[in-house]
Amino acid sequence: MSSLADQAIVWQDNHLVLLDQRELPSDVCFIDCHEVADVIHAIRDMVVRGAPAIGVTAAFGVVLAARVRYQQSPGSWRQDIEQDLQDMLLARPTAVNLRWAIEKMRNEISNLPDGDPEPSLLSKAQTIHQEDILANKTLGDFGATLLTNESTVLTHCNAGALATGGYGTALGVIRSAYAQEKITAIYADETRPWFQGTRLTAWELLQDNIPVTLICDSAAASLMRQKKLAWVIVGADRVASNGDVANKIGTYSLAVMARQHNVKFMVAAPTSTIDMQIKSGDDIEIEERADYEITSLRDQPIGPDDAGVWNPVFDITPAEFVTALVTEKGVIKAPNSSKIEAIMKY
Amino acid sequence: MSSLADQAIVWQDNHLVLLDQRELPSDVCFIDCHEVADVIHAIRDMVVRGAPAIGVTAAFGVVLAARVRYQQSPGSWRQDIEQDLQDMLLARPTAVNLRWAIEKMRNEISNLPDGDPEPSLLSKAQTIHQEDILANKTLGDFGATLLTNESTVLTHCNAGALATGGYGTALGVIRSAYAQEKITAIYADETRPWFQGTRLTAWELLQDNIPVTLICDSAAASLMRQKKLAWVIVGADRVASNGDVANKIGTYSLAVMARQHNVKFMVAAPTSTIDMQIKSGDDIEIEERADYEITSLRDQPIGPDDAGVWNPVFDITPAEFVTALVTEKGVIKAPNSSKIEAIMKY
Repeated sequence: MSSLADQAIVWQDNHLVLLDQRELPSDVCFIDCHEVADVIHAIRDMVVRGAPAIGVTAAFGVVLAARVRYQQSPGSWRQDIEQDLQDMLLARPTAVNLRWAIEKMRNEISNLPDGDPEPSLLSKAQTIHQEDILANKTLGDFGATLLTNESTVLTHCNAGALATGGYGTALGVIRSAYAQEKITAIYADETRPWFQGTRLTAWELLQDNIPVTLICDSAAASLMRQKKLAWVIVGADRVASNGDVANKIGTYSLAVMARQHNVKFMVAAPTSTIDMQIKSGDDIEIEERADYEITSLRDQPIGPDDAGVWNPVFDITPAEFVTALVTEKGVIKAPNSSKIEAIMKY
Repeated sequence: MSSLADQAIVWQDNHLVLLDQRELPSDVCFIDCHEVADVIHAIRDMVVRGAPAIGVTAAFGVVLAARVRYQQSPGSWRQDIEQDLQDMLLARPTAVNLRWAIEKMRNEISNLPDGDPEPSLLSKAQTIHQEDILANKTLGDFGATLLTNESTVLTHCNAGALATGGYGTALGVIRSAYAQEKITAIYADETRPWFQGTRLTAWELLQDNIPVTLICDSAAASLMRQKKLAWVIVGADRVASNGDVANKIGTYSLAVMARQHNVKFMVAAPTSTIDMQIKSGDDIEIEERADYEITSLRDQPIGPDDAGVWNPVFDITPAEFVTALVTEKGVIKAPNSSKIEAIMKY
């Protein structure tokens, strides 16, 4: 756990330091966040991405917000900080961990005694961070038990150390299973339009000396038809209470292809990603991002200006397509409302 | 028919001039081919691409080869040119129109009287070119009859004027149906790794003032789930005698998704794309191209050097997924060996 990917979110010298994931892997550089506005910008502009990583980052954002609000007005900072929490919530709409972490911090705020809130809030944010890493290791081991020996797996986007507090969700399962010598080949979709597979997943796995083979997103069905793929393993940005999964665009495509080819489909996510307030995937807001992500490459146009673009960056995979939902509290095979309700109470 | 896309393959001033499709749409430039080696390079390096366009280009390549071989040795040029024909055949393995066109020209060569072969061969190549355009217009109209009013369609890669002698196959159907006001929305997959959708299809349609909306390849399943898509319409690089279809990577994914969502799936291809020597898709050679198409963008690396890459650029869609195979000889619904054999004899 000394790889660069584990330095994606670090509290250092009284501020938050984020690995700038937009520049990986060609440049390894860091962004300093001294104020909540820096954190909001980092989340919105995808310096940091991945639902659990966004949650951890937001928790540290609350620490920075509280520092300024307390300095400005020790008497009213608890009311004043609400504006910052609302602004953070709007930074990205789909990942529920953002709301989850802010709720945890808001709860901490309401229970604090008077006086400087920073030490307590920092401690709480650090706990959220450490618990996320621990949850990922636990769910990684749970997920690995589902794999038989000599498994070939495909993952999508980056649900790794970079996308979480550390270790990763989908890549946590892959790390654990690889360490147990259960995996013979790992394929990664390149994941348009942001190339998280090429830029982040391949880089992160190779940093840990885990070999990986990249494919175009559109080659996944051929891969399933030609190679003996055992599992598709993905993370999640939000899981509805019925087990429907919001995740990176292309996840639902993979689920459809996996069913056609009798490939099993695993969603690896900590329970902080499960949104019990949402009945089904139909109620999850899907973020649509800018046209230029499709019509340009490295800031140069590749398509006509006047083409229309539809750029949803997440999709919904209905629960019926999910072979197993793997959380830190255990594995739910063929997830549905009652099984999820049971595990959330556990 | 005065658009730039119709100048993709032009015989001019005694040589072949090709629109360089690698640079579109940001640069519109042309490559002069004076020798068969120039033609081979243009096909291999994808200056020209698309099965019918490769066939037409190869026919003109035979003219250039014959000119040199006849000048070198009027007595033995018919034997000498065989080397050029073999070299051309190897330029790209999957598109059958390359072999089809060379066979047509070889047949012409064997029937020629003694004397300068160039005028006759040029006339034959021009006939092949004109017949391809005519076939596309005919199949375009046939395909359009399958669409009901207010259809929304999705196409993949570029099976347009740029990919053929002119008018296009899949885009031929879309042009005809759009002219008949049957289409309300056209979506185009960007088509990794070469972005034929973004660079070529969007450009070509917009040149004809036909509006188009681009999506990532991986968004197709969401599109089918959320929007009322009537048809996926694609071209083909080779159709086996049983109706299995080799086409741009991602075509098979779309076929699987289309079946899941009750979307109809049309393959538009002239009979020159049907290979009666091939029993099924299993026997079609699938070209794999270089790693850098996946690991770099505009010559700059985007992924780690040491990542593996699997880059098949075509895939096989089994005939059972095809709602209709549309040729210039008519429409074959639910294609199979006997129906294809019948139409090829027609």
